[in-house]
Amino acid sequence: MVKVAVLGYGTVGSGIVEVIKTNQDMVNKKAGDEVDVKYILDLRDFPGDPYENLVVHDVDTILNDPEVAVVCEAMGGIEPAYTFSKKALLQGKSVCTSNKELVAKHGPELIRMAREHNCNYLFEASVGGGIPIIRPINASLTPEKIDSVSGILNGTTNYILTKMEREGSDFDEVLKEAQAKGYAEKNPEADVEGYDACRKIAILSSLVYGKNVDFEHIYTEGITKITTNDFKYAKKLGYTIKLIAKSKCVDEKYFAFVSPCMINSENPLYGVNDVFNAVMVHGNTLGSTMYYGKGAGKLPTASAVVSDVIDCAKHIGKTIFCFWEEDNLEISSMEEDVRPFFVRVKGTREDAEKAFGKMQFVEADVAGEVGGVTEAMSEKAFNEASAKCNMISRIRVEA
Amino acid sequence: MVKVAVLGYGTVGSGIVEVIKTNQDMVNKKAGDEVDVKYILDLRDFPGDPYENLVVHDVDTILNDPEVAVVCEAMGGIEPAYTFSKKALLQGKSVCTSNKELVAKHGPELIRMAREHNCNYLFEASVGGGIPIIRPINASLTPEKIDSVSGILNGTTNYILTKMEREGSDFDEVLKEAQAKGYAEKNPEADVEGYDACRKIAILSSLVYGKNVDFEHIYTEGITKITTNDFKYAKKLGYTIKLIAKSKCVDEKYFAFVSPCMINSENPLYGVNDVFNAVMVHGNTLGSTMYYGKGAGKLPTASAVVSDVIDCAKHIGKTIFCFWEEDNLEISSMEEDVRPFFVRVKGTREDAEKAFGKMQFVEADVAGEVGGVTEAMSEKAFNEASAKCNMISRIRVEA
Repeated sequence: MVKVAVLGYGTVGSGIVEVIKTNQDMVNKKAGDEVDVKYILDLRDFPGDPYENLVVHDVDTILNDPEVAVVCEAMGGIEPAYTFSKKALLQGKSVCTSNKELVAKHGPELIRMAREHNCNYLFEASVGGGIPIIRPINASLTPEKIDSVSGILNGTTNYILTKMEREGSDFDEVLKEAQAKGYAEKNPEADVEGYDACRKIAILSSLVYGKNVDFEHIYTEGITKITTNDFKYAKKLGYTIKLIAKSKCVDEKYFAFVSPCMINSENPLYGVNDVFNAVMVHGNTLGSTMYYGKGAGKLPTASAVVSDVIDCAKHIGKTIFCFWEEDNLEISSMEEDVRPFFVRVKGTREDAEKAFGKMQFVEADVAGEVGGVTEAMSEKAFNEASAKCNMISRIRVEA
Repeated sequence: MVKVAVLGYGTVGSGIVEVIKTNQDMVNKKAGDEVDVKYILDLRDFPGDPYENLVVHDVDTILNDPEVAVVCEAMGGIEPAYTFSKKALLQGKSVCTSNKELVAKHGPELIRMAREHNCNYLFEASVGGGIPIIRPINASLTPEKIDSVSGILNGTTNYILTKMEREGSDFDEVLKEAQAKGYAEKNPEADVEGYDACRKIAILSSLVYGKNVDFEHIYTEGITKITTNDFKYAKKLGYTIKLIAKSKCVDEKYFAFVSPCMINSENPLYGVNDVFNAVMVHGNTLGSTMYYGKGAGKLPTASAVVSDVIDCAKHIGKTIFCFWEEDNLEISSMEEDVRPFFVRVKGTREDAEKAFGKMQFVEADVAGEVGGVTEAMSEKAFNEASAKCNMISRIRVEA
């Protein structure tokens, strides 16, 4: 019998209990043991809830119970999740979490603590919700030298961009609608400014390169400035616009960013629409593989946490290896990164080419401006060129 | 030090050696031990090959060497691969393979033998080439009750269908071109008749439902009868035509088939083109996830085999659990399966509707016939209806 405690009985926490109870026979079979939720930690009471008798208010009840082998941290945020997770690991209790903020900020320390105490700190649900991506990286793509990982890692922004493209609506309008539907939060900053995707690409990059990628070193640009006119140009160019989170290793330099990008239909991320997420991983012998599914939602996220619970149950007293060193990986300046740019310039095509050199222009019937794609150039060169003309906006172009 | 033997030094076998040697540091790091190729078994000699000194001609050299812990079977076909694999497992040597024929035919027996001898029989490369799909099913989707698995599992036929759609070319013409390019074999039957995809969906289905799905019980229809006119209709309907391999559980009955199907752009498989493969898995709490990548090719397939080698190296003396019982799962008759059908009928729309009931017709400018999609009906009802009119052809429609 493997006793589990769930910290936080909100959306994800209650989902974890629901997945275990709904699929109890499958969970037990795969764990090779009976998995049983013993405690639910929450400040609130839940009168009438079928599991109200499991609710406790003091984390020490859980930490001091030697029967509890696995703790699911579904509280979100840094504190008290960080303190509770550390205390659990110090007791040799494995911790499974969907908490991307905490994993991005303290992941390697918590992984080390788990290793030192013969237990596990697992976080499949922290990136891509229900999409299995952490375990495939750790256990399937093992022979590969991975040179890039990219993805659509935020469902809210993907929903907004998909709507803007399909309906020709403005960002503000679609955001309001998404908020009304519950697809976007009242304070949407973490999503629309790219902060959420930034933490997720930091986690994935740390795992594929083996060293810590500090999320604060990742260039992050949101989607708030994308307009319907941008989509008009994108369509003419055969592109779509997605919020891409990406890191790559080029000539032994590492780059990482979150930014709206134009991508073409050859890119498997092109067809990833609405609230769906996808992660693409490129390895030196494997080429590209892609993982696609629901990036959020109560049950998909909970299912990923429970897959971690099962893995912990199968590895009681043993640590599943995870390559994420505490040393920081050096991330090169965005200025050195090289790609084409889509630009809109007030003036004539000559004005634009005087600044950026040879361009591929398209006509999107937007008065008083020209738009097109530059040749590949460094971000530094691009920034210098853009000062030489009356640039309205620019969007990075990714292969 | 984990000593490895490679059986068969053809495309996949030489790829396995190449992946291990190219990524030796990564392989060792992930295995937690040095992984070293000690023998290569082949009937031929390879003078001038960098590893010619590893080549042996007698399998007993490998089987009788207690140092060899992992055997990569890259011979293909049933014999002697089956006998060699059994002998290796009886000695407690783990076997990793890309051999879908053997896994589909004797998988559960070999898995049981591995379990009885505290070693492993792993076959990540047998389905989807380099796409991690076996391990995600076994280790990531663990809490899920999976109710369907579907995919584009054969690169050759996907290449042919993609070309037919894009260029309006005939099947025979594209097949010849694919053969010239090496994308199709001289004897293309196993690919174009769906036999290859059939074995792969049998393997996936056995893993997700936990009981053996006998590939001989799977209805299998190839792509040889698909014409350019079919693609004209498909385009008008907003569909594409793919060779779909699928199994599903509906009301506790299991269905499995390989067949060309019309699918619409909402289906994530719609955008899977050229030689790429993809597998979609639907679970009761997770919803749909999809796994995409190169379904064949020397290095991607070899990379998947080496990921298994690493897993074996990490689990010396221990069996990684795999749920694939030897009992056969009962597969219901295709006649009971229900879906809409696209049909082409010689005559008028009235003739067609007299046979099939209400239909959605489209005009594709093909003289002397009408084409359209029926309401959902059982295959049995459809077959009976089709006898009541002059039907030219039909293609199943999958959501």
